[in-house]
Amino acid sequence: MSIPDALLDRFRAAKTASREVARLTSGEKAEALRAIATALEAAAPRIIEANAVDLERGRTEGIATGLLDRLLLDAGRISSLATAVRDVAALHDPVGQVVGGHRLPNGVALEQIRVPFGVVAVIYEARPNVTVDIAALALRSGNAVLLRGGSAARESNMVLVEVMRDALVGRGITADAIQSVDDFGREGANALMNARGYVDVLVPRGSAQLIETVVTQSTVPVIETGAGNVHIFLDETAPADWTNDIVVNAKVQRPSVCNAVETVLVHRAAADRLVPDLVAALQAQGVTVHGDDVVGSLGSGIVPATEADWATEYLDLDIAMHVVADLDEALEHIRTYSTGHTESIITTDSRNADRFLAEVDSAVVMANASTRFTDGGEFGFGAEVGISTQKLHARGPMGLAELTSTKWLARGSGQVRG
Amino acid sequence: MSIPDALLDRFRAAKTASREVARLTSGEKAEALRAIATALEAAAPRIIEANAVDLERGRTEGIATGLLDRLLLDAGRISSLATAVRDVAALHDPVGQVVGGHRLPNGVALEQIRVPFGVVAVIYEARPNVTVDIAALALRSGNAVLLRGGSAARESNMVLVEVMRDALVGRGITADAIQSVDDFGREGANALMNARGYVDVLVPRGSAQLIETVVTQSTVPVIETGAGNVHIFLDETAPADWTNDIVVNAKVQRPSVCNAVETVLVHRAAADRLVPDLVAALQAQGVTVHGDDVVGSLGSGIVPATEADWATEYLDLDIAMHVVADLDEALEHIRTYSTGHTESIITTDSRNADRFLAEVDSAVVMANASTRFTDGGEFGFGAEVGISTQKLHARGPMGLAELTSTKWLARGSGQVRG
Repeated sequence: MSIPDALLDRFRAAKTASREVARLTSGEKAEALRAIATALEAAAPRIIEANAVDLERGRTEGIATGLLDRLLLDAGRISSLATAVRDVAALHDPVGQVVGGHRLPNGVALEQIRVPFGVVAVIYEARPNVTVDIAALALRSGNAVLLRGGSAARESNMVLVEVMRDALVGRGITADAIQSVDDFGREGANALMNARGYVDVLVPRGSAQLIETVVTQSTVPVIETGAGNVHIFLDETAPADWTNDIVVNAKVQRPSVCNAVETVLVHRAAADRLVPDLVAALQAQGVTVHGDDVVGSLGSGIVPATEADWATEYLDLDIAMHVVADLDEALEHIRTYSTGHTESIITTDSRNADRFLAEVDSAVVMANASTRFTDGGEFGFGAEVGISTQKLHARGPMGLAELTSTKWLARGSGQVRG
Repeated sequence: MSIPDALLDRFRAAKTASREVARLTSGEKAEALRAIATALEAAAPRIIEANAVDLERGRTEGIATGLLDRLLLDAGRISSLATAVRDVAALHDPVGQVVGGHRLPNGVALEQIRVPFGVVAVIYEARPNVTVDIAALALRSGNAVLLRGGSAARESNMVLVEVMRDALVGRGITADAIQSVDDFGREGANALMNARGYVDVLVPRGSAQLIETVVTQSTVPVIETGAGNVHIFLDETAPADWTNDIVVNAKVQRPSVCNAVETVLVHRAAADRLVPDLVAALQAQGVTVHGDDVVGSLGSGIVPATEADWATEYLDLDIAMHVVADLDEALEHIRTYSTGHTESIITTDSRNADRFLAEVDSAVVMANASTRFTDGGEFGFGAEVGISTQKLHARGPMGLAELTSTKWLARGSGQVRG
């Protein structure tokens, strides 16, 4: 595809800016981030005003309440955003970290160090907080960023980007380190996907549909994030207390996120012991259980499950429950339906735990823990770019290090190859 | 695109095989590789016979002498191939290596380990040795492999793949861990590029044209390898002995490879001192020097360079030479024309060396060493899948570790998220 000149100009400016931010010291980047946090707080009235326009349009267009809530920015949320930016400023800067190296037999000193990608692009949906989070993470790791947010948040995003750019200029840094292409609509997204030579990595964040589009249409390198059809397997020896605590936590604490459990698999020999209490515990929290025949016979109010339920990422207070013959059948079910995000086994049998950990091919595989732990914050990364479900470059929660590449430095004294 | 059933069957078989090879111990994989090496030696007459058919067809179709030489397999080369496979067997197995981890505050033990990608696909040109090299590297790192070689080597590749598959079966390993799609011609390559859910990573090896096609048309994750428009900058303080040794080595030792130097940039203040001797040294080795006016005035037999020369990867006994005002102009020239593979500065000024190392955005940046060192073998990796010129996942020479992904393991005792 051909990219309009006005967009190409922006991409070129991003590339030039990337060289400038790559050279900033860790301290300079932290100062710039603190300036951004302060500027966001100071601009709260303007941000709220712009956000009101987005909210009003959203209501008129009848978007769902959940989406409206994600769209909302009030004084409290803006303050939280500013705090998040200050937290990112406090994170350890990955740039320059030596990750490998040795001296060659001929004396050449080889060193592999972390360097910024250059230009990071992100295509996401109507969550204005992502605009700020991603810009902060990109800047901390020495990258310039190109943002394409959802049109439902366009007024909010426009003001947020403007405030951040002004704050950069106030610190003597080029505003082009943070740019949006929202004003180009869908054309902006298409151009980002085809910006070979300008965009070093493109991260889609949002619905399965958005991610599929980006992955299949991009000619620039992509990190696939995402969809989580997450399983918990209750092994024969699963303790009832762990089972109830973990499944309820994994389903109920925040049902709309990708690390929430969607299907519980139960070892046949444990079904009578575990299912009735677990179903009751889930139902007490308002969860609808979609079960197979065995599950249906062990609880009341079970909605009969169909094949489609095994493949569904509900992202809501619904859960599928399926009784399997043994660990092998559980592994086979997971192989068939998992999206490779997170799976957990509840067991006290260490051999089964080890097999599950070894054989399940997902970004995060757990034994006896809630799937909700798959999260950059919980993993101690301090912030999260997204959760990668691909195997290239990054897998699982992506922190600042995952926004860097590496480069080899070789220092010699006249050596030639023999 | 829709993938023919016969190819889909092969992709599914590769996926199934990948689970089997992922579980092999390091010792089992090494044994299998040694069996492959022995089988290749034993099958030498069959391989040479098949290769003769490819060579004959190549001659009839009038392919270049250099390509015919790359295509040739004789007893000596087959023996070298077997040795290379034994060398890979002796390499450290990256699978299972713990690359990170810590204990969360709540007691969950988090561990990040290396795991095989699963199914690695490689599209390459008419070099039958690549068939064996890649299969060996993929198996050592616990991956199944799907191969698509150039049609000019199809008879050779067919026998090589058959011999390797039989050797696997002899060790009780599924033959489907090594498969070729050569019999599907171009359709096989297209299917690999679109095998979402089957191919975990696709590596193109070959001409710039092949790589461009794969990068722009694939919907599976790709590692871009390749093109090297490599520069050496002679700074004001470049010692004449280092300059001559390094430039001649980097150009002449093996002109057809991607780490050979293509353009020499010379600091104006050093041109009178360095250019005459360097030009003479290059010409004595049969190198044609394409120079700008200043270079032309400092040597005889200089071919006038045009803009196109700065962008040309000669891969032959040709070199471009350009006098620049200073380090800044050299950096700007490299930014404009480099393919991000390897660049080197010759200097005794440590500040200029540091700036060059910091600011040149290439996979490998050197000071005072020959660009020919950018090589998996030279870097001590023992073998090389290719040289990545992208920033995602791998950058520079790719060894076995670059054929792995990672996975997070979390071991708890009933923990839930607060």
